[in-house]
Amino acid sequence: MEQIKQYIDQHRDRFLDELFELLRFPSVSADPKYKDSVLQTADYVAEKLKQAGADNVEVCPTAGYPIVYGEKIIDASLPTVLVYGHYDVQPPDPLELWKTPPFEPTVRDGKIYARGACDDKGQFYMHIKAFELMMQTNTLPCNIKFMIEGEEEVGSNNLGIYVKANKERLKADVVLISDTSMISMENPSLETGLRGLSYLEVEVVGPNRDLHSGVYGGAVANPITILSKMIASLHNENNHITIPGFYDNVSVLTDDEKKALNSAPYDEAEYKKDLDVEELWGEKGYSTFERTGTRPTLEVNGIWGGYIGEGAKTVLPSKANAKISMRLVPNQTSDEITKKFTEHFEKIAPKSVKVTVTPHHGGEPVVTPTDSIAYRAAQKAIAESFGKEPIPTRGGGSIPIVALFEAELGIKTVLMGFGLDSDALHSPNEKYDIFNYYKGIETLPLFHKYYAELSK
Amino acid sequence: MEQIKQYIDQHRDRFLDELFELLRFPSVSADPKYKDSVLQTADYVAEKLKQAGADNVEVCPTAGYPIVYGEKIIDASLPTVLVYGHYDVQPPDPLELWKTPPFEPTVRDGKIYARGACDDKGQFYMHIKAFELMMQTNTLPCNIKFMIEGEEEVGSNNLGIYVKANKERLKADVVLISDTSMISMENPSLETGLRGLSYLEVEVVGPNRDLHSGVYGGAVANPITILSKMIASLHNENNHITIPGFYDNVSVLTDDEKKALNSAPYDEAEYKKDLDVEELWGEKGYSTFERTGTRPTLEVNGIWGGYIGEGAKTVLPSKANAKISMRLVPNQTSDEITKKFTEHFEKIAPKSVKVTVTPHHGGEPVVTPTDSIAYRAAQKAIAESFGKEPIPTRGGGSIPIVALFEAELGIKTVLMGFGLDSDALHSPNEKYDIFNYYKGIETLPLFHKYYAELSK
Repeated sequence: MEQIKQYIDQHRDRFLDELFELLRFPSVSADPKYKDSVLQTADYVAEKLKQAGADNVEVCPTAGYPIVYGEKIIDASLPTVLVYGHYDVQPPDPLELWKTPPFEPTVRDGKIYARGACDDKGQFYMHIKAFELMMQTNTLPCNIKFMIEGEEEVGSNNLGIYVKANKERLKADVVLISDTSMISMENPSLETGLRGLSYLEVEVVGPNRDLHSGVYGGAVANPITILSKMIASLHNENNHITIPGFYDNVSVLTDDEKKALNSAPYDEAEYKKDLDVEELWGEKGYSTFERTGTRPTLEVNGIWGGYIGEGAKTVLPSKANAKISMRLVPNQTSDEITKKFTEHFEKIAPKSVKVTVTPHHGGEPVVTPTDSIAYRAAQKAIAESFGKEPIPTRGGGSIPIVALFEAELGIKTVLMGFGLDSDALHSPNEKYDIFNYYKGIETLPLFHKYYAELSK
Repeated sequence: MEQIKQYIDQHRDRFLDELFELLRFPSVSADPKYKDSVLQTADYVAEKLKQAGADNVEVCPTAGYPIVYGEKIIDASLPTVLVYGHYDVQPPDPLELWKTPPFEPTVRDGKIYARGACDDKGQFYMHIKAFELMMQTNTLPCNIKFMIEGEEEVGSNNLGIYVKANKERLKADVVLISDTSMISMENPSLETGLRGLSYLEVEVVGPNRDLHSGVYGGAVANPITILSKMIASLHNENNHITIPGFYDNVSVLTDDEKKALNSAPYDEAEYKKDLDVEELWGEKGYSTFERTGTRPTLEVNGIWGGYIGEGAKTVLPSKANAKISMRLVPNQTSDEITKKFTEHFEKIAPKSVKVTVTPHHGGEPVVTPTDSIAYRAAQKAIAESFGKEPIPTRGGGSIPIVALFEAELGIKTVLMGFGLDSDALHSPNEKYDIFNYYKGIETLPLFHKYYAELSK
């Protein structure tokens, strides 16, 4: 532990500078105008992997953005850890709400503010620095492979193809990912499950053109009103989702699991104050942690229709659109839920409109068994580094490729994230605490150490 | 009549060229970037008024866009007709849906396509040409005054101030406006009523920032969902508006009035086909004409919230907004309805969000008595020009200043519009039929003739 801390101290500034340089690339995968930046980011990551000591570093082309690969095989008989991360980031908009530019990393109160600071650059880069540290201190106890992709934020469509085509190269005993959060630095935690995702766009079309709302208002269905009614019907008065069969395959927590989940510290007043809301909202009969970690949910991520510019325009619009996503829990599947949503939404549409449902990328829910070697290694690493056992938590977000790895490579994933809920992922003023960045670099080598030990 | 047709024939091309020039000015009052164009349009209108023979032509400044005034007083003992129109136009967007540019008037199939072709440039310019015609043929039978403003599309906020400050100058016996439509050229009609308007913007705020829908989805109210539920609740299953007291002051048609209204030709299959809808929508128990002309309605003109760009973004947004307007009928008032909507909307908002309601410009509903001199003059003019009595109709749209004129100048308004429902007002590919343009120039001098005669 001392050796780890010493090395970090010696290279503290450089570790931060390199991360800042990584953050400056606007690697927004969702928007084609950033294409060159995304590609430059891949090259930067490959360069840093090489400098850290990796062999066979390659920027592997795909039908979309490349996947950066690197490895260090020290002994074929030792276990192999496959580190996954992503170098692409969410779009930065709305730009006007950022205090400092999203791609100009700025430090305030010990936090790095930038798009991607936490999700996922700050987090995956800790692994490259931890790897460098183990190489330089000659303490790498197992084989390590890196797979850093550039399309996670848009559905990782080409990752599956790459994984299937490279099963030999990617052979490993466990996948290690840092893309989640802890309760706090005082209460370290380990994610034991992630929700799945089903994402769709819906379009409701009424008249074949925008109409004057005086001439036609009252005689023709307004697609905004119809869409509102359809959205409104998706939750009943208990905020329970009304799609037929939606909850069919939802597995229920055991009493022990519920107890463990709800034992994590939770200050409802603080939670509400942080969001500046008077009242929370959710499925009746479930606690906040159960609602976000163990229950499936439906959110409207975006809605638009009609005139949304400055001033007034009395139009009865031709169409209205919405982006809707559902978070899934075991044992729902993305295909099953996408199908059920689509059928239901088309069914409840009145005859006065035409409705189209277009699915986007999805992902399966996962649970990591707490009695596995990998989980126990992570547990020990955190206990040593933080001086406290991690609390097992159920994550609300989705990392769809975890199910992909299990299906294609036959291996489980350990989620050792060092983020915080306050990091504002996907929002303006995303940040990553500097303390957490170095804490992760400190803790990760311990994972490898205990993973190798427990695997003997 | 012959003399009228002859004059029009002789100047046919120039009449069209001058209108085209007027249409080329992008006089969009709602958007400040068009300011210079709006001012240039006022100057053009003043110039044309002068050339047509008007005296005391003035571009009168206001706190906003100027009002163009002109007059011809031939004999103080004769009645005076005050012609009102507006030279500003609606915003042209969405631009990509126009077949030809909105400010490059193009003729297709005998129709002039341009923003403002019908609303209101094509229609008010007929009056200036009719005036020129009467001057040149020495057949002007009464005094005439022109008041053409530049802010009708944004609420005519400065018109009231101008009218109040110029009561002497604007003294007249009737206001004449062309800003409405006829059933068809085969079935000419006269508007006997207009709906009023109440226009508001609503904002629903949930958490104080956009959130990650995985981390928070299920625990916090989504303002898009809440707004949808609130909008959905505004119409019950009979499409009757649920705002308490909304219908309190709505006057009901007499059986005769209903019969007259519903005697206008109506082909429901054609109506649906034109809009490409399978089914119509409206308040149960009322016909299409009753719904658009005699019943108050509520439309959502625009809605937006969350991520509406390309691709997927799993955000639980901080806020959602909508523009909502209501069309009113006698004897509802704009203030009364704005107040009732605001109180109700604030009341039904759950505690998990904060709601703000911001009123925009409004306008009162009006009815023109069919036994008045002005109405009968218009009736005779149309009967002679079209060879058929006009059908009395109730308009769905609003012209708020009609109530203003009655309140401040103590005079009624006659609505002699020559537009058609297919003109696509407020929509892309707005048009005005060339036939209608010339028909109006032909008919308007007859109105003045009969108005003067019936006033003796």
